[in-house]
Amino acid sequence: MSFQGEHGAYSEQAACLFFGDSIQTQPCATIKGVFGTAEGESVDFGVVPVENSLEGTVSQTYDMLLQSPLKISGEIKVRITHCLLALPGTKLGHIRKVISHPQALAQCSKFLDGLNATIEPAYDTAGSAKLIREKTLRDVAAIASEGAASLYTLHIVRRSIEDDPENYTRFIVVGKNDARPTGKDKTSIVFTTKHTAGSLHKALGELAVRGINLTKIESRPIRGTPWEYNFFVDFEGHCMDQICSDALRALESSSTFVKVLGSYPRANTT
Amino acid sequence: MSFQGEHGAYSEQAACLFFGDSIQTQPCATIKGVFGTAEGESVDFGVVPVENSLEGTVSQTYDMLLQSPLKISGEIKVRITHCLLALPGTKLGHIRKVISHPQALAQCSKFLDGLNATIEPAYDTAGSAKLIREKTLRDVAAIASEGAASLYTLHIVRRSIEDDPENYTRFIVVGKNDARPTGKDKTSIVFTTKHTAGSLHKALGELAVRGINLTKIESRPIRGTPWEYNFFVDFEGHCMDQICSDALRALESSSTFVKVLGSYPRANTT
Repeated sequence: MSFQGEHGAYSEQAACLFFGDSIQTQPCATIKGVFGTAEGESVDFGVVPVENSLEGTVSQTYDMLLQSPLKISGEIKVRITHCLLALPGTKLGHIRKVISHPQALAQCSKFLDGLNATIEPAYDTAGSAKLIREKTLRDVAAIASEGAASLYTLHIVRRSIEDDPENYTRFIVVGKNDARPTGKDKTSIVFTTKHTAGSLHKALGELAVRGINLTKIESRPIRGTPWEYNFFVDFEGHCMDQICSDALRALESSSTFVKVLGSYPRANTT
Repeated sequence: MSFQGEHGAYSEQAACLFFGDSIQTQPCATIKGVFGTAEGESVDFGVVPVENSLEGTVSQTYDMLLQSPLKISGEIKVRITHCLLALPGTKLGHIRKVISHPQALAQCSKFLDGLNATIEPAYDTAGSAKLIREKTLRDVAAIASEGAASLYTLHIVRRSIEDDPENYTRFIVVGKNDARPTGKDKTSIVFTTKHTAGSLHKALGELAVRGINLTKIESRPIRGTPWEYNFFVDFEGHCMDQICSDALRALESSSTFVKVLGSYPRANTT
């Protein structure tokens, strides 16, 4: 199983929740890299973030879903709790610099405003923790997960330093096959309509008339033709359910392009 | 007029395209800061990015639109052309480090892969250019706009280094009043429906039955209640047009929440 980030990343935490702690995990620098490994023979699945409750959609994941032959075969919702990590013995008052991914820094801005420390963006949350350990950076702290603290034997100086506790990330599992129907599933698709009045309404009507519940919709600019859009839609049901396969067939006949990204068991709402 | 970033930022370039080069501009560190100044008395308008053709939506802008009393009163589409900037006399082979905003670094990754230089994320494109000038950083280059080069008297080592030339950002102008109808307008709204099958379809039907053309739709998680969504929708027409005001009234009666974010002249599609 491959994931984006360094060991100790939130994506790895999500993978362990889904597959269990004994799963072998392989870090990748980029989301594109996760798809690449999962398309190959070396790993069976990839785990990537798709949406954060504060930041919204993860663009690179949507871009890769559009072009990759992989199927979404699961989803995981993880509560994100940021910790301030430093070398053992470091007190809050000692910290002169805080490093982390810009999103993590932004999500802890109220806490950071109260520190007398410079803030430095880095590529990765867990990678920042790793850097402190590898280079024995004194007076420097990283914002990362609790898991990163134990992995790199760092001290948790402060826990839950995020401004907004309602901070959740939804991750998806991508693999070579669809998941079997469980009776409590979700399907993700992407489609394009003609740019005419009512065309999206007509397309969504194919779901609505069949009583299919939409759980998410997003228009994303089509690469190469700016200001034209693909619509990414999640709805309840499995594409092997009669009602969903009917809706998909109707959608195909009224759209210029439809791709089923996968059907998979719904994660529990946390 | 306030904008996000340092002088020389793409947002400032957009503002000059909209208001003319003689407009007085005030830099703000954050998008929240732009809204704050434009809500106050010191400036009349703010300019913020709302969407990039490669990266998608700018979350902070949507979050601020939801809570701010300001109205969208204009939009500007800007082609983003990244340049590699360094102190005069610097040759490509001299460069040992490249600094810029992580998005700009990501958008130039193919070019950067061919350099023998370390890559360092920074908060801002124009801010990176400013830093090189202020600290006389030799052997360091920034990725920023052509405007930043002339502002900080840096040399353009390479022009158009982005991987994908179809890189456009759409900016919006926010101010205290709606723009007057021009006959070629666009309206942005946000609304919430009940989470039942077909409720979004029904809401969009109020636009479709009136022949109103939808130009963008996006669901964004509602803060405080993760996995419930606000729908941000752009459509053609001005809220003072009879047909649009009828649709909005119908939408209000069928939705749990509707807010008109503004009506404004459509930017030319570039």
